[in-house]
Amino acid sequence: MSWQATILTLFPEMFPGPLGTSLAGKALNAGIWSLAVRDIRASATDRHRTVDDSPAGGGPGMVIKPDILAATIDQTEHQGPRLLMSPRGERLTQGLVRHLAAGPGALIICGRFEGVDERVIERRSLREVSLGDFVLSGGEPAALALLDAVVRLLPGVMGDERSGFEESFEDGLLEQPQYTRPRTWEGLEIPEVLLSGDHKAMARWKKEQRERLTEKRRADLWQAYVQRKN
Amino acid sequence: MSWQATILTLFPEMFPGPLGTSLAGKALNAGIWSLAVRDIRASATDRHRTVDDSPAGGGPGMVIKPDILAATIDQTEHQGPRLLMSPRGERLTQGLVRHLAAGPGALIICGRFEGVDERVIERRSLREVSLGDFVLSGGEPAALALLDAVVRLLPGVMGDERSGFEESFEDGLLEQPQYTRPRTWEGLEIPEVLLSGDHKAMARWKKEQRERLTEKRRADLWQAYVQRKN
Repeated sequence: MSWQATILTLFPEMFPGPLGTSLAGKALNAGIWSLAVRDIRASATDRHRTVDDSPAGGGPGMVIKPDILAATIDQTEHQGPRLLMSPRGERLTQGLVRHLAAGPGALIICGRFEGVDERVIERRSLREVSLGDFVLSGGEPAALALLDAVVRLLPGVMGDERSGFEESFEDGLLEQPQYTRPRTWEGLEIPEVLLSGDHKAMARWKKEQRERLTEKRRADLWQAYVQRKN
Repeated sequence: MSWQATILTLFPEMFPGPLGTSLAGKALNAGIWSLAVRDIRASATDRHRTVDDSPAGGGPGMVIKPDILAATIDQTEHQGPRLLMSPRGERLTQGLVRHLAAGPGALIICGRFEGVDERVIERRSLREVSLGDFVLSGGEPAALALLDAVVRLLPGVMGDERSGFEESFEDGLLEQPQYTRPRTWEGLEIPEVLLSGDHKAMARWKKEQRERLTEKRRADLWQAYVQRKN
């Protein structure tokens, strides 16, 4: 059975987009995952094909109507959890990516405007997920990133090799610097220890580098790491 | 002068992708921003067109060679800061998005494999930026999300209206629930206060909702908010 991605969007032409090429595109063609895209506007019933309306109580933008979005969800066969991409959501993590990849698929709803009516989030048990603390024009670029992260973990997509980045999120430190040939480039050398063959010294160096980088760039990860160590 | 996006990638066919449609696509056609995409592989000099090599000291994956990437950067005219999309980077925030949108453009380098040789990051002053703590197949989906966030802020793209999500990141709380017509849907009512016309009561309700949601979903934002208040 292939992993089933189902997308609800007002811009179906954005899919598969970048996921139609490279690693994800090959996996799509090989049937490792499948993609169904449904236009939310197809559920509109008036002659202007209205999908949104003004926010109750005022404020900028427009809100997607609960009846329209619920109708689209109800009429679309889908597998796995129902996600709503939204800057209000919980942060996407590698843990959630792994959880999704281990399941049968996901329904991914792309918000636009000021979001969707809260009642459809409640009644249709939508899980709000955010890429981070920035605002996109809609959920579509977020859905593409989420799917890219999930698809690379599906069996048969990447082969056996795990990425060092992935391991790095598991122990809560950023990855150390990487080097490759040539040994000297623009006057800079590959650090001696990496060419020494001394595996203990290399492991020590990597850990020091990872700790230093994490402390410098990510106070949040560093704090959690120090607390775990003590 | 249009805002100049310059992308260095091993998958040039992924661009403009979703940015060729909708809001960003209209702005691209209107010349509000421009997009140049350059294939890193075009800088390879051997007959296998090699761009990467094994990591010094061992480990999984391959590392992009410093000489190849530096040559691509040096041969590509670009405006603004040089960003490298990487899970090791600082987190993308709405503040950085605004900063980029206010400048002349950006060079966005999409990593693949285990990343790029550290020496090119140092010598070419690359700023590493991450979408979040998850691993993509490469920097391309991250670059698309970053550009989408920047383009919507360029003058003339969205009109005058600001998104409530945007304001929410400025004061460090998530946005309150939104509602729209119909007033009753599947037995659920729009909260009375939003229909009351009492602006003070509405403002109080919104703030309470935002605080409650932030406390529940985002311990990090909540902690910072409480500290600022005290």
